[in-house]
This record gives sequence, C-alpha cells and structure tokens, in this order.
Amino acid sequence: MKHVISAGDFTRESIERVLASAETLRPIWESRQPREALTDIGVVRLLFAEASTRTAGSFEEAARLCGMPSALTAGADATSLIKGETLGHTGRMYHGQNAWALVMRTKIEGGARWVAEMATRYGLNLCVLNAGDGANEHPSQTLLDLSTIKRRLGRLDRFRIGIVGDLRLSRTVHSFIRALRLLDNIEIILVSTPESRLQWWYTEGMTNVTVADSLEALVGCDFVYTTRIQRERFPADGYESKRVRGRYVIDEAVLKMLGGKTLIMHPLPIGDGEIHSGILMHPQVIVDEQAANGISIRMALLQMALAGQEDVTELDTCEPEVEVIRSVSAQESIARKDAEDRRFLPIPHGTVLDHLPVGTGDHIKKVLGCDPAKSYVGHDGGLRTREPVVKKDTLRLENRFLTPGELSIIGVLVPDVTVNSIRDGVITKSKIRRVPEVTGIGHCPNPACVTNHDAEAALFPHFHVHGEDRGVLTCHYCEQYFDRAEVLA
Amino acid sequence: MKHVISAGDFTRESIERVLASAETLRPIWESRQPREALTDIGVVRLLFAEASTRTAGSFEEAARLCGMPSALTAGADATSLIKGETLGHTGRMYHGQNAWALVMRTKIEGGARWVAEMATRYGLNLCVLNAGDGANEHPSQTLLDLSTIKRRLGRLDRFRIGIVGDLRLSRTVHSFIRALRLLDNIEIILVSTPESRLQWWYTEGMTNVTVADSLEALVGCDFVYTTRIQRERFPADGYESKRVRGRYVIDEAVLKMLGGKTLIMHPLPIGDGEIHSGILMHPQVIVDEQAANGISIRMALLQMALAGQEDVTELDTCEPEVEVIRSVSAQESIARKDAEDRRFLPIPHGTVLDHLPVGTGDHIKKVLGCDPAKSYVGHDGGLRTREPVVKKDTLRLENRFLTPGELSIIGVLVPDVTVNSIRDGVITKSKIRRVPEVTGIGHCPNPACVTNHDAEAALFPHFHVHGEDRGVLTCHYCEQYFDRAEVLA
Amino acid sequence: MKHVISAGDFTRESIERVLASAETLRPIWESRQPREALTDIGVVRLLFAEASTRTAGSFEEAARLCGMPSALTAGADATSLIKGETLGHTGRMYHGQNAWALVMRTKIEGGARWVAEMATRYGLNLCVLNAGDGANEHPSQTLLDLSTIKRRLGRLDRFRIGIVGDLRLSRTVHSFIRALRLLDNIEIILVSTPESRLQWWYTEGMTNVTVADSLEALVGCDFVYTTRIQRERFPADGYESKRVRGRYVIDEAVLKMLGGKTLIMHPLPIGDGEIHSGILMHPQVIVDEQAANGISIRMALLQMALAGQEDVTELDTCEPEVEVIRSVSAQESIARKDAEDRRFLPIPHGTVLDHLPVGTGDHIKKVLGCDPAKSYVGHDGGLRTREPVVKKDTLRLENRFLTPGELSIIGVLVPDVTVNSIRDGVITKSKIRRVPEVTGIGHCPNPACVTNHDAEAALFPHFHVHGEDRGVLTCHYCEQYFDRAEVLA
Repeated sequence: MKHVISAGDFTRESIERVLASAETLRPIWESRQPREALTDIGVVRLLFAEASTRTAGSFEEAARLCGMPSALTAGADATSLIKGETLGHTGRMYHGQNAWALVMRTKIEGGARWVAEMATRYGLNLCVLNAGDGANEHPSQTLLDLSTIKRRLGRLDRFRIGIVGDLRLSRTVHSFIRALRLLDNIEIILVSTPESRLQWWYTEGMTNVTVADSLEALVGCDFVYTTRIQRERFPADGYESKRVRGRYVIDEAVLKMLGGKTLIMHPLPIGDGEIHSGILMHPQVIVDEQAANGISIRMALLQMALAGQEDVTELDTCEPEVEVIRSVSAQESIARKDAEDRRFLPIPHGTVLDHLPVGTGDHIKKVLGCDPAKSYVGHDGGLRTREPVVKKDTLRLENRFLTPGELSIIGVLVPDVTVNSIRDGVITKSKIRRVPEVTGIGHCPNPACVTNHDAEAALFPHFHVHGEDRGVLTCHYCEQYFDRAEVLA
Repeated sequence: MKHVISAGDFTRESIERVLASAETLRPIWESRQPREALTDIGVVRLLFAEASTRTAGSFEEAARLCGMPSALTAGADATSLIKGETLGHTGRMYHGQNAWALVMRTKIEGGARWVAEMATRYGLNLCVLNAGDGANEHPSQTLLDLSTIKRRLGRLDRFRIGIVGDLRLSRTVHSFIRALRLLDNIEIILVSTPESRLQWWYTEGMTNVTVADSLEALVGCDFVYTTRIQRERFPADGYESKRVRGRYVIDEAVLKMLGGKTLIMHPLPIGDGEIHSGILMHPQVIVDEQAANGISIRMALLQMALAGQEDVTELDTCEPEVEVIRSVSAQESIARKDAEDRRFLPIPHGTVLDHLPVGTGDHIKKVLGCDPAKSYVGHDGGLRTREPVVKKDTLRLENRFLTPGELSIIGVLVPDVTVNSIRDGVITKSKIRRVPEVTGIGHCPNPACVTNHDAEAALFPHFHVHGEDRGVLTCHYCEQYFDRAEVLA
Repeated sequence: MKHVISAGDFTRESIERVLASAETLRPIWESRQPREALTDIGVVRLLFAEASTRTAGSFEEAARLCGMPSALTAGADATSLIKGETLGHTGRMYHGQNAWALVMRTKIEGGARWVAEMATRYGLNLCVLNAGDGANEHPSQTLLDLSTIKRRLGRLDRFRIGIVGDLRLSRTVHSFIRALRLLDNIEIILVSTPESRLQWWYTEGMTNVTVADSLEALVGCDFVYTTRIQRERFPADGYESKRVRGRYVIDEAVLKMLGGKTLIMHPLPIGDGEIHSGILMHPQVIVDEQAANGISIRMALLQMALAGQEDVTELDTCEPEVEVIRSVSAQESIARKDAEDRRFLPIPHGTVLDHLPVGTGDHIKKVLGCDPAKSYVGHDGGLRTREPVVKKDTLRLENRFLTPGELSIIGVLVPDVTVNSIRDGVITKSKIRRVPEVTGIGHCPNPACVTNHDAEAALFPHFHVHGEDRGVLTCHYCEQYFDRAEVLA
C-alpha cells in the first residue's frame, strides 16, 4: 500500500493487514519510546488546512514513534493555498522539500486522490495519506473504528451496528460504510433525519442495511456509532444545522434502553452533546479508547506507505469492451450487394460512426477534435431500403481510427453507436458493450470537487460509468454520483 | 508538584523551590545545549489556543533544553475546540497521543484546573501547566517575575513595588498579587483608573496594599510592574479600552520622577506604549531580562512536573465541620418528656432537618433528591410550647442519613439548620459549624468560566465558602468571588 | 555574511559565494540525510506572520539538513504581534529563547532590517534572514532564481530575460532586479500593464532594460520570469487586481511564440493562471525545479549566517563630505577689513550658519534643539556691501559646533548653507559637498514601513540621499524613494 486515499480502495484483506500491523506496533505506542530515527528517508509532511487535533496529533505522534521526521503545517492561512496555489504545486513543492509522504486534510473533495495521481504523472516518489477531504472520505478513521470493533469483539464479522447523525455530510460515515460493505454477516441500522440521510449510492445493492428515524431502532446493537452535525459544511444560514441539532442524544436513558452490551463509539469531536456529558465515564462509552487506537493504526499506515514507497503506480484507465458484430471484405460486400455496408466504402480507410441520434453528429465531431477537412456528418436518416425510416446521423472519419479512450467517450455519449472500421478493404462493424470509465469529457457538478478548485485537476475530468444505460457517472476524485446529463451538460 | 494551575496554590516554600531549581538549570539555558533526550516519557503537548510568542516559545525551548520531546498546537483554529470539543476530550486525546504534560493557554477561565481534575477522575497520568486561562491566572509568569525580583534584589522580602495598568483584567497581575501575599515586609501600591481597579478579593485582608490613581504614588519604589490594556477581553465597542488607553505611560520624565533605583518590569507584550519606546534601552528598564528569565523557570516547572508525574492527586473536597449539640436516647427523651425531641420519634431511623426557614423545605427536598414516599415536609411553625411561635419548616427523611457533601449543601443553603439523626433509638442533634467547600449545587455566574464553556465541567459545580454567614462563594475553577445568591439563583 | 536583508546589499561576489556554497551542500539535500546535529548553537526561529508554504518549509528543511534545531511560528494570529508588540521586543524575546537566527516574514516593510539593527543596538548575537517583508524584498528567492539560471545556463552573464506581471508590488521582482543590476551582458525586458510598472528607481541608470506592454517583446528570451498578481497588497476594492488579472498568461501558444529555448520561471505560487495549467509538465516550464533549488540555497545562507554569527556589525552612518573654503584668523580678518568675516566675530567661539534661505533659520534652530539663550537668528538680508542685496537668514550658535549627523541634517534641509566655525580666533568657512545619509529627521511616507508600524523603529528615521540637489531620499528600512519634501513635511 503506497497511498491511502479512500475506504473505497480497501479490500477485506487490506483491512486485516493494517489491523494486524497496528497490533504489532501497539507496544511501541504503549512504551512511548520511539523507534530509532530513520535519518535518510526525508520527512512526513503533515498538511492540515482544516482544523484538527486528533488526526493531526496522532499522525504526528505516529511518525515520531516510527522514528520518521515530520513537519506540520496547520491552518489554511499558513499555506499558499489561500493565495490560490493548486494542490499539484503544493504537492510538488513538498516533494522538493524532501517529503516522502504527505498526510493531507483539506476541504477539497478528491484532493488527496488528485495529488497522488499528480505524483505519478510527474514521476515523484511521494505517498499520499488522506486525513480527510471535505465531506468525502477519512479512511484512517475507518481503520481505527474497525480496529476498535475488532479489539472489543475479537472479530470483524457477526455484529450489529447502528450509525447515527449527520450521515449525509459526515466523511467518517462515508468511509466507514464503504468498509462495512466488505464485512460478512453484519447488520447496519442508519438513523438520521430525512434531511441528513446517507446518499443512496453508499448502500447501493446492500441487503443488510435498515434506515430508521429513531434511536429505538438500535436496541440490542453491538455498537452504536454516533456522529457530529457537520456545521461547517452547511449553508451559511445554519438553518439545517439548527433543525437537526440535538435530535439524537445518547444519554443515560438511551443507554439503558439500548441494553448492557451496546458500546458507544464516536469519531470525535462531540459537537453538540450527541453523547451526554454525564455518561462519558460510563464503561459502555468507548470513544476515548477508540481515539487512542488511532496512533497504532497510523503507525501501521506510515510503515506500509514507506515500504510501498517505491511501488510504481500506473495511471491506467479501464478500456471499454467492444464486440465485433460482423466483418466483411469490401469485395464480398459489393458481391453481396449489402447496401448498408456499401455505404461506407467511399471512405477506403477510416471510421464510420453509425446510428447516432439525430443532431449528435456535429457534437461528437467537435468532442473528438476531428479535422474538418477529413470528417463528414451525414444526416441521411437511415437507409431508404428499410421501413419505417429511422432518422439518424452518421460521422465519417477519413484515415482515423478511435483510441480506447475515444471509444469510451463515444460509448457514454451515444451508447447505441455502431462503429465501422474500414481498413485494407475490410469493414469491421462493432458495438460498445461496456464502458467502465471515461476521461476527457464532462464536468463534475460538485462545487467542492478538486476539479472545481484546482486549475490543473480541472484538465483531467475522469468518471466511472454505472447503470445498464450508462446513465450514472461517478467522479473519480470526489466519488460523488451524478446523472450522466448533469456531468455532460 | 505535579500540576501548575494557579498562584493561589503556591506557598512561600514552593516558590523558593522553583526559583532555586531554576537557578541550577540556568547554565543549561546559557549554554544552549540541551540535556540528553528523554526518549521514553512521551511528549509535552503545548496547546496555545490564544496568541502567544513569549510563553509558547519559552515552554518549547525549555522542553528542548530539558531533553523532553514536545509538540506545539497554536491557534484556536487549528484545534477541534472550534468544533465544540470539550477540554476534557481534548485532554484525554492528548493523553492518548502520549502527552505526559499539557501546557495550555485558552480563554476559558478555570480550564486548566478542570483538565487537571478530569485527569484524576479518569485516572490519567497527565500533568497540566496553566500558561494563561482567560483573565484568571498565569502562574509561570508570576514565578519568572519573582525570579527577576530575587535576582536583582538578592531576596524576596523587604521591597516596595507598584503595579500599574489594567489590574482588573490582567491575569499576570492576578497571579502576581496572589504570590505577593505570601511575602514578608513588602509594600504594594496599585495604580489604575477606577474602572480597571483590582477586584476586592485579591487583596482581602492584606494591610500592605495602597490604591492610587497616579504614577506619583510610585516614587521610590524598588519595582514598578506595568501592564498592557487587555483589549481582547473588553466589550466589543472598545469603549473602556479607549478610556484607559495611554493613561499610564512610563517615559523618561516618569523614570526621573521615580528615582534612580526603580526598576521597570512588564510581563510583555507592550500593547499601547505603556513603556515609551525611547527608554527601552535604559538600564532601569529590565523587561527583556525579565522575559528571558522565563526559560529556566519553565525548565524547572517541567522538571518538577515530570518528577511528580506519578503522584496520585486525590479529588477530595473538604468536609464540613459538624458539632453535636446533644445526644439523647429515645427512652430518655420520653422519660424527660422533652417535647421537642419526642417530635422526631415518628421517624425511628433517619434524619430530621429542623429550623429550616419557612418555604425552604420543599426546595431542599428537591436538591437532595429525596424519595417522595419517604420524606415529609412539615410547615408546623415550631413548637407550640414556646412563645413567640417561630415559623419554620422541618424535613423528615426516613431511613436516610446525609453524606458530608449533602451536609455542605444544607449548610450553605440554610446555615442555621439543626440536623437530627435518629439511629438505634438515639437522637443526635447537630449544628453545621463550618462549610469550607460545596459541590453539586449552584452555577458559576462568570460567562468565561469553564463550567459555562464545557458540557462535562458544567456537571461538576464546585465552590469554596467564605464569610461568617457563608455569604460569599468562590468558584473552584475560575477563582472568581460571588454573592451566594448569585450562585444559587 | 551575518544578516540577509536585501538584494540591494548583494555584490557579484557574494552572490557567487552563496551559489557555490549551495552546490556543495546540494548532495545533502539529495541524500535527504541531515548533517550531525549541532547541539549547542541554540535554535533557528522561523517567524512567518504571512502565509507561506514554500519559503517556510524550505528554510525548515534546510535547517534540518544542516543539523540546526529550528522552531516555527506560523500565522500572525499565533504571535503577540497582533497584541501590538513591536518587532524589537519580538526579536529580543526570541534571542532570549536561544534563537541564534531569526528567519522572518511579515507585511512590515523594512522590518527585517530594523530587527537586524536592533540586535546590534542591544548587543545581541542574532542573525536576521529576511524571508519577505511586505512588497519590499525577498532576497533568498532571488538567490534561488539566480541559482536556477546558473544551473541551466552554466553562467550568470550573457542572457536575455523577460520579467512579467505585477512588477510594482512583487517583492520577488524587486529583489531580482537589484541583483540583475550586478550582472554583465544581460538584457532585461519588463512586461506589465502601465498600472503595474516597476517603480523608476529599481532600474535607474540601467541601460540594458526595456519596458513593454505585451508578451511579444519576449520572443527569443533565455528566461521568462512571470509573477502573480499580489492581490493581498491591493486596495480593498480589488479594482486594480481585477484590471490586471489574467492579462499575461503563458500558455501553449505563447510558449510556441517565445521559441524552443525560452525557459519559464515563476517564484510561485501561481495565483490566477499566469502559467496555464496545461503546460505545467512542459519541459520548458521549470518552476518546480526552481522552487526545489531553494533548499540548498537556504542551507547555504544558514551556514554562512552561522559562520558569520560572531561578526560585529557596526551601526555607522556615512558622514557628510565637508569642504573648507577658507580659513582666516580673526586678526587677519580684521586686518584685511573683510566685512563678511568680521560679522561673525561677535561669537568668539561657536558656529555661524550663513546663506540660509529666508525663513528657515528658526526651523533649523528648532531641529538642532538649540539653547534659546545661546542662539540667534539674523534676518539681516545679506551684506549691504554687495549688490543686489540677497535676502537670507543667519543662525549664530555660541559655544556649539555641529556633529557630522547635524551637518547631514543641515545639508539636506539647506544644501547651500555656509558653515562658519569660530575657534581660537580662527574662522573656518565650509560648504557641505555631499550628504550620503541623514538620520534623526523626516518621516517615511510609506504606511507599510516599519517606522510607521513599530513605536521603537519610529524613533530612528534614517534616509539615504540622492540627486544633485539632494532632492530624493530613500528610506533606509523600506527602501522606497521619495521626494525630499514628502519626507520632511
């Protein structure tokens, strides 16, 4: 493991590996005695542009205990980010200042992913650890949460957990639920007001999730994971914050109702008394233990990052699946008097896109950056030989064949397209069957996304494609889901 | 010494001990060469949520010279305190991050005391050093001030000192005066405008304090300790600040007036030219020397904290003094036909509170959390056998005896109460003679007090009781004095 | 080299020395392995009261690699500067905290120079390294810029460089141009809008500078140094910023136009896309390499500061050049019946200032702080023996002779004055021929100047004198140029 960006990248195995490593490192934390200093590795740069005590401090102490020199930059005001500097420059600069790892917290969603990719693009040997990117992800928190569960329960399966609070905006919940998806035989109850409900995609396809409005639904849970209202991510008027604030409070009465085995967790800080102060010393409230588990988890992550530092990360996008429908020689085509195929022969070498919805031909020509002198849009409305006449566009590209990336773009823009390649007198007719990812088109609608904050990242739109009709796109960086139309607008 | 919270905790001996220790450590400071690193003690966490250069920097350097690893968090924005986190969680978290000492500056008055107590409650091995809590205390500053006096004078008695400026809001003055109270044969002149006068309690019972309006009163002083207008603690309109600003300026003319032996001190920073810039290089102005003395003082405090780290601090509240007035057996009572005592016999085992002012019975019943089925308020207006009839309430509690804490509460609420305990056929009649402290009731009226900032601290009201009629209560945390009625309202 | 304050202090030799030293230190940076710790030198205090990532981080890493302990204070809010503390106190305090070097960035122009001088005044062994003082200077940036040029070109002469952007407010440009003045056979093209043009004095007397409005002027340059709009130094309405923003963008088309040998530099951060994100990976864009060169430069500066630490810096102001016109004995004068000389004899011992413009006598008397009982202004209008009668004032000072500093003041106030000293019966008549510097009068008109921010610095006005008629004064601290009348108003 080189980078730690999102719980969406975890596997069951990688989680167990981190937890096991943390256990072996735990005695160092308990002894308070650092390992011998690693003098020739450079520094761990801790960049905390949003407020942090727990995460910043525990990464700092984890680095100290691992014998890794570190340097902390805290507060957005202290950095050139406020002068408009891009994350890419910030990352390259820290690399120049001998940072081998960058632990970063910013309000820019997808920022950590972007910096990690930028490092690969520029060939920099820099590990990126996401310590919170806006409302998106907080993967090291999830690992310490899982570590707390495993230490208490002795296993990572067969338990019932309730998650309560501002689920929509809480990055700790987002990471947590992505990891919980990987565990077997667990039951999840999500408790929130309708306004704070978790976005649909986090639990898509999961059958072990229940949604509820009230704490009563949590009776008998092994764990109740409650969270803070994310005031700082709300609209300025604070309207929603006031509405949900104080709605779910774990106090002595609730604790009693839940039963004697339910352990109360919280990623901290407690903001508005989600856990009543009167029960903080109760043995079922394990929030301080949970926080303290963070040191050895972060030691493990730093150690694994250092070990994987030299790994080459490839920036590869999955290629589309293209199925060849038919392949005929031009001669054969003429011989067979196949009207449809013969239509393409005026282009002896190149590509013809067929079955384009009416009016899309010119748009695609533009998106592909076609040479106007060598590409022609036909609005010919289909073959006259068939009835009823289906109106459609065609696009003929002389001497040009599409790359996998271009096929992905076409496959998202016009899923039903037929791609005809004409080469050496042979016409090959294909359909684009699956498009896992698409880059180079679209615009992420999330204003907090790194692609809307960072001029360099903005040049690299990148989406994952979902749905039978390719109608849902996920931003590769901020991990939000959108309708295709929103992204392509 | 484990914690350093308030100059009010100092003794003459503890002051001398710190000063002596500082002198032995001074050569390390002068050599700039740190002691060998203490690798297995954890870290000194420096939390400065209010602006600081001098105190933060000198604790940081002191830790370095002592070979103690430290980590600095500066600026409230950098911490979760702005997300509403309590000091208790902050303290527990730093402890989890291997902090053995927490040097803290916040605007929360009594915050350091609270964190120290919280550590004891939770069984954490954490030393707390108060580096300034709002307008309350700054004990390490006082120690360096005294160190400066002793180094210049060769002794800590027989001197005359003037203290000038914003005495009401200056924590350095508050700590200083509490320590000066312990010194012999000194004379103190307090110079301020009427608005900025020191609160009465700081000098209560001191006979060596003079109050003045003008710098003329300071002629011939050994030391003049001048202070900054505490603009940041004034109401937002700045009205008072503008009124007192620039009122007392030590310039060349004043220096001449004071005479050749007066040394000018200032806790720094100078805010509005309290010491005119033209005399900063004058040999009688020793403010930079004074500031520099802070390093060895803070080394001494850290060393003593480390040495005392394992000390068990008990959270004990002083018990009330209860005097037994009379003790009679029930039989004897019946035999003596003592009407008053016989009245209590309907409760064969339990407590009867007598001589309660009319109307207070129900309130006390509520405060004590009495079982309604086993407690009865009588409004019977005293014994009919005596004239004139004195109206009063009684409260009979079956099978219940009061704890020392409950006796303190009763003793503050109704000082004249008579407590009758009936046990094994014996009635014991007592008076509460002295109540040093009371916990569990009241609300500190100081909005800056930790009990008004911190949901957890709010659950532990704690006051010291003063005055013949127990009419003045001091908040255990913020150390302010209030009328009993304000606290109990 | 002890202090590093301004590129205006550089010589060609000192630049080469730093660059050579940086090259020898470079392998340490590349190895990431620090030198052995210097345990007895105290600390490098890094004070960054303005936002910084690059400069703060690279000084921090440079100190680490040099084995020098350092401590960082970042953000104005974290320091007592916001409580109104002067830089002098801040500097003295850090010295007391064992800082041997102070690397400082503030918005106060001339602040670093002032702290360096203050250290000398107070006899403190403190090196000051200016890491940016408002819109004035950023000398270590210039050294890394020159290092980048030399590493790319193999030499520091014979090149053509364009400088683009907000030249008026960019401290990196101000420092850079002062250094470029020292290089041979280079050609400089300054490109900006008229509003952002470089102030006249930076290029005064240089014959190798061209001014242009458009990027076309840069075709064929070896280097193009482009800069950020200094939004934070603009008037609050942002008017000017909006006007110049986005005016000069280096994109692919511009790069092509410039030609294949032009290397693009930028001090970073890029604020508004001055370099288009699409070309950041282009091999001619060397901004990240340039930034990374800063580590070894800053290592060199710290090493040289440490080596020169003990150097005694004298605070000497250049004395005025005074030419004796004539010297006559009183007797001889009487014998020669020289009416003009005889006029002065009523003052047997002292000074007579002659040829003062009418009405200036009383002003000078006041400026010199003359004893009213021993100084007399004459409005006698010149000698009657000559025609036409030239009206003038004279000022006779009994028993007083002027110091060099006073002669400088007189020489700036009334350049044509004749100074007659009468001593032992000899009258010596002199003219003030040259006044390099003047202290003790005037007021810097620059509101950002340290003399307008710092009560202590305000007491030491200090100007360099330019122009044949001494009509232009440069502030010794903020290095801005003013008309004499503005300063003396």
